[in-house]
Amino acid sequence: MRKGDPQRLITPCASCHGVGGQGGKLEAPALGGQNPVYFVRTMLHYHGGQRHNDVAKGMRFFAERLSRAEIEALAAYYADLPATRRR
Amino acid sequence: MRKGDPQRLITPCASCHGVGGQGGKLEAPALGGQNPVYFVRTMLHYHGGQRHNDVAKGMRFFAERLSRAEIEALAAYYADLPATRRR
Repeated sequence: MRKGDPQRLITPCASCHGVGGQGGKLEAPALGGQNPVYFVRTMLHYHGGQRHNDVAKGMRFFAERLSRAEIEALAAYYADLPATRRR
Repeated sequence: MRKGDPQRLITPCASCHGVGGQGGKLEAPALGGQNPVYFVRTMLHYHGGQRHNDVAKGMRFFAERLSRAEIEALAAYYADLPATRRR
């Protein structure tokens, strides 16, 4: 989440979605407190191409390089992270 | 948010997204604490058809019947609502 994986060119989630999962300055959504079923479904849709509103195709690039287990772990992590209003 | 608008056949947001914006039982995303820029962009994408991963085309139906001002008011409302983990 905060380190990403340079080997797989995976940028840290936090760099766009905020260290506290509160979302980015521009349109990157907040992830803190997100419904894990929605989170996994969304990532799989990016992976499969059913969803393509991601800026610069970034999310598809990452989703394709994450395993299902990693996606589910991220979903659980963010679900338990309280969403904090952007300060 | 909790009453919807029967005249315009707009279902209350809370019925799928939870009274506390915590997300639904199935895949309806949590909205509490969501980035308002992302919220508005998403609703406009549903309205314009650029985004179509909404179950049963429900969101497009609602987004088309909401004014821009109403969408922005909902974005601000939900942004300030703390995301609560589903119990």
